[in-house]
Amino acid sequence: MKLATIRTGTGTAAVRVDETEAVETGYADVGALLAQDSWRELAAAADGARHALDGLDYAPVVPRPQKIFCVGLNYRSHILEMGRDLPQYPTVFAKFPAVLIGAYDDIVLPAASQAIDWEGEMAVVVGARARNVTVEEAGARIAGYAVLNDVTARDWQYRTKEWLQGKNFEATTPFGPVLVTSDEAGTGSRQLTTEVDGVTKQQADTGDLVFDAAALVSYLSTIITLEPGDVIATGTPGGVGQARAPKEYLGDGSVLTTRIEGLGECRNHCVQEKPHDA
Amino acid sequence: MKLATIRTGTGTAAVRVDETEAVETGYADVGALLAQDSWRELAAAADGARHALDGLDYAPVVPRPQKIFCVGLNYRSHILEMGRDLPQYPTVFAKFPAVLIGAYDDIVLPAASQAIDWEGEMAVVVGARARNVTVEEAGARIAGYAVLNDVTARDWQYRTKEWLQGKNFEATTPFGPVLVTSDEAGTGSRQLTTEVDGVTKQQADTGDLVFDAAALVSYLSTIITLEPGDVIATGTPGGVGQARAPKEYLGDGSVLTTRIEGLGECRNHCVQEKPHDA
Repeated sequence: MKLATIRTGTGTAAVRVDETEAVETGYADVGALLAQDSWRELAAAADGARHALDGLDYAPVVPRPQKIFCVGLNYRSHILEMGRDLPQYPTVFAKFPAVLIGAYDDIVLPAASQAIDWEGEMAVVVGARARNVTVEEAGARIAGYAVLNDVTARDWQYRTKEWLQGKNFEATTPFGPVLVTSDEAGTGSRQLTTEVDGVTKQQADTGDLVFDAAALVSYLSTIITLEPGDVIATGTPGGVGQARAPKEYLGDGSVLTTRIEGLGECRNHCVQEKPHDA
Repeated sequence: MKLATIRTGTGTAAVRVDETEAVETGYADVGALLAQDSWRELAAAADGARHALDGLDYAPVVPRPQKIFCVGLNYRSHILEMGRDLPQYPTVFAKFPAVLIGAYDDIVLPAASQAIDWEGEMAVVVGARARNVTVEEAGARIAGYAVLNDVTARDWQYRTKEWLQGKNFEATTPFGPVLVTSDEAGTGSRQLTTEVDGVTKQQADTGDLVFDAAALVSYLSTIITLEPGDVIATGTPGGVGQARAPKEYLGDGSVLTTRIEGLGECRNHCVQEKPHDA
């Protein structure tokens, strides 16, 4: 089953995305849907207003998650090729919801940064409350998976040791178009590809993650209660612009495509923000 | 004017805390109150149910901020005594709302950590939407100030370079009891004191901040829109347990008191969480 949040004339609607059409579920967005204990049954049985797939206006698949965790340094081959040891613990930082944009929305390149880079990632969406769950228990708490690009202002990321300020520029993080539920997605590995203007920049297999979806849900649930709709972006593989020689960044008009086999793709135009007086 | 969120028989209520009583404002919590453009007038005119000050059950003063920013390394004297240069940019990380507790609630010492430390801080609460505001414009966007203790699991903080996981254990961060509005609090410096079991551990003057409230509001508003109720914890001075010889941490039964002149105090008992099977 595929779920999405679409913009309608009057707001947003959580829809089930079928082969030929999208069907409204009666909930305002996928976050509100996932907050229902029986969201799987409710979504499967939904029979609301129908929309043609062409021309759907996708909002971020969960527009306002309570928590967005991001993981750094999580692709085995990339860590090893950099000559580093595999980490014992995941590196975790946060994003705030206002960074999220829909799968085909414009990425706003902030006037304050001169180094906006891509980080294609698979996102895990939590489907049930989880606190102190084991890795074995974690799988049942996962609603499904979606495409996300942790677009990053490198100059701000490295101003200090804590990355948050480079990771939270407003309207920079594509997320969607759909959530593919775990029963449909399975736990197998998937090919992840990031392209800039049609040129492949990142290509990796999600099976190469050091900490996989269940491991991350278990680990984070030791710290704080995970809630339905919470998001865990699982990290990016090699091939980011910052690591290239010469370094490459996104510019006004760049088209960023982030694709994961079985989950779909985000395709976003970059638009330079006008400078501010401040 | 002092504002608080109190727990009532049926939920929570935002109150104005007067000399002798607390008066309900009609909003469910201070976050909901601050979301009203005219919150100052509404709070000043409030004439709802009244409560004796004795026995008020304080929730976190803003129970569910959209964003909680925390600043590290921000007290000048402490940075200089450590032999470091003053930073050019603030170091910023995030907390999620489920870490917050009321001013007199128990701090849950997580079973997973053996190194829970104190970090007394002044918190700034945003009172109006702010994006790309100058330092001069920032003051008018500040609702006021409150006491916060950024209680930290040092062992988890230093597992990786990103501090988030040591800063987000559930129910560890006292915040309140009241928000003192900026017109009443003024912008002068205030004495901050942290005590453990009645022994002073931290003492500093908020005038010693490298990046003050207005500077932080301006800086963060360059990145993302600040919303009413957003919180900025401005950093802690010297005297934390981790920096002592031998190191000191909070234990089962410890009483942590965090006090700021003019803003009041949090007083929290530490209660050890039972170990989990996980």
